[in-house]
Amino acid sequence: MTKPVKLTEPVFCPHNLNKYASLMTIGNGYMGIRASHEEAYTLQTRGMYLAGLYHRAGKGEINELVNLPDVVGVEITLNGEIFSLTSGVIESWHRELDFSCGEVRRELIWCASDGARFAIESRRFASAQKLPLLAMEIVITPLDADACIGISTGIDATITNHGRQHLDETQVRVFGQHLMQGIYTTQDNRNDIAIATYCDVDGAAQRCFTAKERRLLQHNTVQAQAGQRVTLTKMSWVDWTSERNLSLETWGRQSLRNIEECAQQGYDALLAESNTNWHAWWQSRRVQVTSTDISDQQALDYALYHLRVMTPDHDERSSIAAKGLTGEGYKGHIFWDTEVFLLPFHLFTEPKTARSLLRYRWHNLPGAREKARRNGWQGALFPWESARSGDEETPEFAAINIRTGLRQKVASAQAEHHLVADVAWAVIHYWHATGDLNFMTCEGMTLLLETAKFWISRAVMINGRLEIHDVIGPDEYTEHVNNNAFTNYMAWYNVEQALGFARRFGYSDETFIYRAEHFLQHLWRPEVQPDGVLPQDDTFLRKPAIDLTQYKALAGKQTILLDYSRAEVNEMQILKQADVVMLTYMLPEQFSLQTCLANLRFYEPRTIHDSSLSKAIHGIVAARCGDSAQGYRFWREGSLIDLGEAPHSCDDGIHAAATGAIWLGAIQGFAGVNVRYGELHLAPVLPAHWQRLSFPLRWQGSTLQITINDAEIRIHSTEQITLWVNGEKVSLQGETVFSNSGIILPTHGTATTEGGDE
Amino acid sequence: MTKPVKLTEPVFCPHNLNKYASLMTIGNGYMGIRASHEEAYTLQTRGMYLAGLYHRAGKGEINELVNLPDVVGVEITLNGEIFSLTSGVIESWHRELDFSCGEVRRELIWCASDGARFAIESRRFASAQKLPLLAMEIVITPLDADACIGISTGIDATITNHGRQHLDETQVRVFGQHLMQGIYTTQDNRNDIAIATYCDVDGAAQRCFTAKERRLLQHNTVQAQAGQRVTLTKMSWVDWTSERNLSLETWGRQSLRNIEECAQQGYDALLAESNTNWHAWWQSRRVQVTSTDISDQQALDYALYHLRVMTPDHDERSSIAAKGLTGEGYKGHIFWDTEVFLLPFHLFTEPKTARSLLRYRWHNLPGAREKARRNGWQGALFPWESARSGDEETPEFAAINIRTGLRQKVASAQAEHHLVADVAWAVIHYWHATGDLNFMTCEGMTLLLETAKFWISRAVMINGRLEIHDVIGPDEYTEHVNNNAFTNYMAWYNVEQALGFARRFGYSDETFIYRAEHFLQHLWRPEVQPDGVLPQDDTFLRKPAIDLTQYKALAGKQTILLDYSRAEVNEMQILKQADVVMLTYMLPEQFSLQTCLANLRFYEPRTIHDSSLSKAIHGIVAARCGDSAQGYRFWREGSLIDLGEAPHSCDDGIHAAATGAIWLGAIQGFAGVNVRYGELHLAPVLPAHWQRLSFPLRWQGSTLQITINDAEIRIHSTEQITLWVNGEKVSLQGETVFSNSGIILPTHGTATTEGGDE
Repeated sequence: MTKPVKLTEPVFCPHNLNKYASLMTIGNGYMGIRASHEEAYTLQTRGMYLAGLYHRAGKGEINELVNLPDVVGVEITLNGEIFSLTSGVIESWHRELDFSCGEVRRELIWCASDGARFAIESRRFASAQKLPLLAMEIVITPLDADACIGISTGIDATITNHGRQHLDETQVRVFGQHLMQGIYTTQDNRNDIAIATYCDVDGAAQRCFTAKERRLLQHNTVQAQAGQRVTLTKMSWVDWTSERNLSLETWGRQSLRNIEECAQQGYDALLAESNTNWHAWWQSRRVQVTSTDISDQQALDYALYHLRVMTPDHDERSSIAAKGLTGEGYKGHIFWDTEVFLLPFHLFTEPKTARSLLRYRWHNLPGAREKARRNGWQGALFPWESARSGDEETPEFAAINIRTGLRQKVASAQAEHHLVADVAWAVIHYWHATGDLNFMTCEGMTLLLETAKFWISRAVMINGRLEIHDVIGPDEYTEHVNNNAFTNYMAWYNVEQALGFARRFGYSDETFIYRAEHFLQHLWRPEVQPDGVLPQDDTFLRKPAIDLTQYKALAGKQTILLDYSRAEVNEMQILKQADVVMLTYMLPEQFSLQTCLANLRFYEPRTIHDSSLSKAIHGIVAARCGDSAQGYRFWREGSLIDLGEAPHSCDDGIHAAATGAIWLGAIQGFAGVNVRYGELHLAPVLPAHWQRLSFPLRWQGSTLQITINDAEIRIHSTEQITLWVNGEKVSLQGETVFSNSGIILPTHGTATTEGGDE
Repeated sequence: MTKPVKLTEPVFCPHNLNKYASLMTIGNGYMGIRASHEEAYTLQTRGMYLAGLYHRAGKGEINELVNLPDVVGVEITLNGEIFSLTSGVIESWHRELDFSCGEVRRELIWCASDGARFAIESRRFASAQKLPLLAMEIVITPLDADACIGISTGIDATITNHGRQHLDETQVRVFGQHLMQGIYTTQDNRNDIAIATYCDVDGAAQRCFTAKERRLLQHNTVQAQAGQRVTLTKMSWVDWTSERNLSLETWGRQSLRNIEECAQQGYDALLAESNTNWHAWWQSRRVQVTSTDISDQQALDYALYHLRVMTPDHDERSSIAAKGLTGEGYKGHIFWDTEVFLLPFHLFTEPKTARSLLRYRWHNLPGAREKARRNGWQGALFPWESARSGDEETPEFAAINIRTGLRQKVASAQAEHHLVADVAWAVIHYWHATGDLNFMTCEGMTLLLETAKFWISRAVMINGRLEIHDVIGPDEYTEHVNNNAFTNYMAWYNVEQALGFARRFGYSDETFIYRAEHFLQHLWRPEVQPDGVLPQDDTFLRKPAIDLTQYKALAGKQTILLDYSRAEVNEMQILKQADVVMLTYMLPEQFSLQTCLANLRFYEPRTIHDSSLSKAIHGIVAARCGDSAQGYRFWREGSLIDLGEAPHSCDDGIHAAATGAIWLGAIQGFAGVNVRYGELHLAPVLPAHWQRLSFPLRWQGSTLQITINDAEIRIHSTEQITLWVNGEKVSLQGETVFSNSGIILPTHGTATTEGGDE
C-alpha cells in the first residue's frame, strides 16, 4: 500500500476558513475537532464535538451536538503585535491534512507590521489510540531579530453553538505549572465533561494562569533570540460521562492523570502510537486507484479518512451524524444516510463497526415503537432525525417563515417512512456479508420483525389491494404521495425478508406469519410500464415536466425554490433525487439492466440533484448499466460536493453521505461489487480515466484484496469463498486472476467455476 | 454655556478597542450601547444593555445585566474584501464622542489590499428623546474607482455575556423591504425583548434577508461609481416588558410602528430632537472650568455625560450599576457607590432623579428586611449587590481559587453593612436639598426608621457600651473588625437622624424612640486621639505598617495581593481606601479641620488607593483642608482612572463612582460645597491650575449659578435662599458677588449677611 495522500489548503483566505476547518477536521469517532487556526478570526467557527453528546439549549430549540469549550485557540503576540494572517504579510504558506495519520500541519513565515519575520509551524492530531486525546504543538521562531513572544492558551468555555450555550461551568482548576482543568455540566444536569489540559512553553520567562469569564488561560512570555525555536506543547484529554457514580473530584482526577501520562510520553511518541494504529487501519481499507487525474486518489483517501473519523465505533449508543463530527449542520442528527451511504463501507471493511451501527438502532427500538404507536401504527417507526435517545428529534415545525411568521410542520418526520425499510435493508446486508448468527437471531431478527410489523400496519386495503399512502420517498420535492415505488418495493422487501428469516429461525408467531404473507400477496408495487419506466408514485407520470437545465447547473443550491413554491414543485416532474434510480441501486436483483437503464434515462433529466445523495447513486447505476463515462462524471461531481472550489460548500460540516458515496461509487459502481440473493457479485466497469483499481474487501469472514485493470481482475482471498465474477460463479482461495472476459488465468491460488447462472 | 467638548480616540489600535467601546458608550439611562466598531474584531466585546434587565444563566451563575442581541455590527465588503482596520492601510482616521449630544462619529479613509481607497463615515446616537431608539448611519464612498459594496447587517442574537446566553429566540420576522424584528425571551420566561430594526441602503441593487443561527440579516449589494456616497441608515427600537398583558404579536407591533415613524422622520430630524433635549440638559448641569490644562474641562464633560447616560431616571425600579450601562463588570449590580458617589450630582442638579434613586431602595425594602431577618437582625439590611428584585445578588462564594479549588464566602455581603447608613445619609441629604415633605413623611421616614432599626439590633452591649462587631468598612483590606469608626459614626448618625425625624413627624412608636435614645446614649464611637487620629477600628492602630510606595505607584491594580495574602494584608496597616478620611468627607460637621487634616496625614501613607473610590475623596478632604495642590493632584489622578492611558483600564465598563467623583471633586472639593446641619456651605479653594469654575446648583427649589475665580465668588439665585459663603451666613436672590474674603460686592441682586457662626 502506498501512503494515503494529503489535502492541502492552497492559500490563506478568510472566505475559506470554515470550508477548510470542516474538510480538515481531525478526530477519531469519539471526538471531532474542526481545523480552525490557532489564532482567532472573526469569521472562524471553532468546534469540538463528542459523538452522542447532545443537549437542548432553551425553549423552542432542539437537541443538538454540543460545541465544547475550545482548546485549539492560542493568542500569539510577537513584540506586542497580535499575530493574525489578516494583517502583516504572509511570506510563505503551507497547510495540509495528512490522511495517513490525521495530523493537520501548517508552516508559514509571517512578516509583522514592523518588517520582522517569524516562522510559525503548528501541528495537531486526535489520537487514534487514546480517543480522548488531542495533542498539538506550535513552534515560533523569530527569523530576523530577538523578539518577545507572548503565548496565551487554555480552555475557553465562551464557545457556543452560534449563541446557544449548553454547558454550565462547574469547576475550573489549575495544578502545578502546566496543568489545568475545566469541568462542565450540560444545563439539564445529565452530562459532565472534564477537559484536562497540559501546556508547556519551553523557555517561558513568565507564566501565569487566569480564570475569568469562562476562560481558563495560561499566559507565557518568552524573550527569544533570533533563530531560537520556541515551542508550545499542548495536550488535552476530553472525558465525558452521563452516568457518573464517582464524585466530581475523583472522576475529574482520572483525566488529569491521563493527560499527565501523555505529557510524559511527549508529542512525537503519542503521534507514533497513533500512526501505528492509522497504518493498520489503512492497510485493511485503502482503495488505490491509478487515474489520469490524481485528484481521484485524493477523493478516495479523503473519503476513507472521514469515514473513520466520523464513526463512533467505540460506542454503540452513538451513530454517524449527517455532518459527522465536523460541524453543526443538521444539529449533528442521524438520518437514513448512515445505513444506506455509510454503513456499507464499514460492512465491507470492518463488519464489527456495521454491527455497532445496527445495534444503535436496536437500542433505540423503544423510541421507534413509541413513535409508531403514537401515530396509530405497530412495530417500529424510527425517527427521521435521531440523536442519543432514539426519540424523534426532527423539530415539529420547520424554521419560521420570516415573511409570514408562520411555521410549517416538517413533512419528513411525518411521512418519510422509507427509513424503516432502509434499516431492515442494512440488517439483511449485514447478515449476507457476515453470516453473524448471534446478531441475526437476536438484534437482527427483532429489527426485521419490528420494521416489518410497521409496514404491515402502515398499508391500507383499497379495492382488494394493499397500498401505502401519504409518504415521501427519498425525493423530497414530491411530498405526500401514494404508492411511492421506492417505499412500496422496500417495504415489500422488508416484510419478505422478515418472513423468510422468521421461518428460518422458527419464529412461531402465527399471526405475524399470516399477516406477512397477506401483506406480500396484496401489497401493490407499481409496475414497470411497457417503455421500461417504473412510475415513481401514483400521480407522478401525470404531472407536467419543465426544462431544468438552469437548476441542474446549480445542483445542490435548491435554486428551483427561488422560482417556485414547494407546493408548485410538488405538482411537477421535478426531482431532488430520483427514487426509482435509488431503488434499482438498493435492490439490484429485482430489476433487469434494461429497466435500470430505462429509468436512469427517464428520471435523470427530471432530477436536479439538489440532494447531496443524488449524483453518486446515479453514477453507480450508470456504471452498472455499463456507462462508465456517465458513471465517472457523476462520481466526480459527487466527490466535488465538498472538495470542489465553492468557498462555503461545507462551512457547517462536510456531507457525510456524499463522503460515503465516494467509496460506494468506486466499489459498488466501478468495481461492480453488489449483493444479489445474498451472494457477492463483482462486475467491474472501470472508467476510461482509471487504469487500475485495488481495494480490500471483507466477505463472510474472508479478507479479499481485489485489483482490477483493463486486462484482468486479480482477487486474493484469505479463505475459500464463492462469488460471481462477471456473471461466472467461482470458488477461490489465495490469489486468482481473471481475464476481463472472466477466464481464470493461472496463479498460485485455487479456483473453480461453478457454472452458475445469474 | 459653551458647548461641551469631545472625546477623541487618537488612533485605531486593537488593544484599545474595549477601552474606547466603554468610554464612548452611548445611551440614555434606558439603554447603553458600547461604542464597538461596526465591523467585527476578534478582541472586540459588543454590548447593549437595558437598565434593570437582569437574568441568571445556568447553575452556579448569578443574576447579571443581559447583553442583548447586537444591532451595531455591519459587515462591509468592498470589491469582495471584508473591510477591517487590521488589514489594508488606514490613510486617515478620526473618531470622537460628542458629549454635547451623545453622538459617536468616525471618519476614515481606508486603502484596500489592491490599493483602492474608500471613505467610510459613520455616526450613531441613542435618542435622549425617544429612549428605545438607537439610530445609525454609515456612508461609504469609493474614492478611486467604481466598486461593488456589500453591506450586511441586522439583529445578531448570537451575542452572549462571555458565553452565557440569557435569551431564547422567540420570533424573528421581516416586513416589506426594510423592516425586521426579533423577539427574545429571557430563559426564565419573565421578560420579553422586542427589537425592531429598519435598514435602508440607498441604491441597493440587490437586497435579501436571511434568518439563520440566531442571526436575522439584511444583505445589500451596491454597484457604486467612484465618488458616489452609499448610505446605510439603520434604526432600532428596543422594547422590553416583564409584565406583558398583550399578545406577543400585538405587543411586538408597537415597536414596529415606532421604528417606522422614526424612519419617516429620518436620522437628522431624530438627532435634532435628541440634541434639543441634550442642550437643555447641559444648560442646567454643565460645570465649566478655565484651567491651564484643557483636559480638566474634558474630564468634567466626560463625567457629566456619563452621569446622564448611566442613570435610569425613567424607572424607579432600576438604579445605577457600578459600571453604568457601559459593560458587564460587576455583573451590572448596584452598590453603595450609587448613593454616595452618584446621587449627589443628581440631587444638586435634578432632585427628581435623586428621589427616583431613593425610591429604588424604598421599593426594595422587602428584600432588605428579609436579609436582616434571615441574619437575626431587625429593620432593613440592604443587599451589598443589588439588581432588580432587591434581593442580595452578591454570589455566596467568590470566584473559585483555581489553585485550591476552594471558594471563599464573599465577606462584603456578610459584613460590609455601612451601606445601610449610606442609604440613610442620602435620604437625609435629599431632605436638606429639597425639603420634599411628601417624600420624607412616606418613603424617607420609612427608610430612616428601617435602617435605624437595623443598627439598633446590630449593636451588642459590651461592658456597658454598645459596640458594632464583625464589620467591614469601605476599606476592604481590613475585614471583620469591631467598632469600625466609619460604621459606628454613620450608624449613630443614621439613628440620630431617624429619631429626630420621628419626633418631628410625630412618629409615636415609643419602643423605637426608647431604643433609639438608648442606642445613641450607649453606642461607642471611637474617639479622636490626642494626636488627632481617629482609630479606624479597635485593632487597627496596633497593627504594623509597611512601606507601600511600590504598591501606591500601581494604585488600582491590587499588586499588594501578589506579595501578601488577604489574611496578611488584614493584619497590617494597609488600606484600600481610608475609612476615616471618607468619614470626615461624609459628616463634615462632626470633625474639625484639624481632625480632618490629622487623619488625612496619618492615613494617606497607609492607603494604596486600590479602590477607584479612594483618591477623589482624599482630594476633596485635602481641598476642604485648604490644600488645593494635593486636592488637585488626587482629583486629576482620580479622573484618569478611566481616561488615562492604560489600554485596559475599563474594558468591562467605566468606573461609575469614579465618574461621579469627578463632579464631586470639583463641586464639593474645589467649590467647597457641603451641607452641615442641613445648611448649604460654599468655601471655594480653586487649585492653582484653575482660573475660573462655574456651575449650576439646585438648592431647596432655587436654581443657583455659581462662578468662582481667584478674586470673587459670583452667585445667581432664582429664589431667595440662605447659605454660608466662606463661613458667613448670607441670604440672597438674583446675582450676588463676594470677594474671596467673603465681602459682598455690589450687584443687581439682594443679599444680607446673617452673622452666623460655623
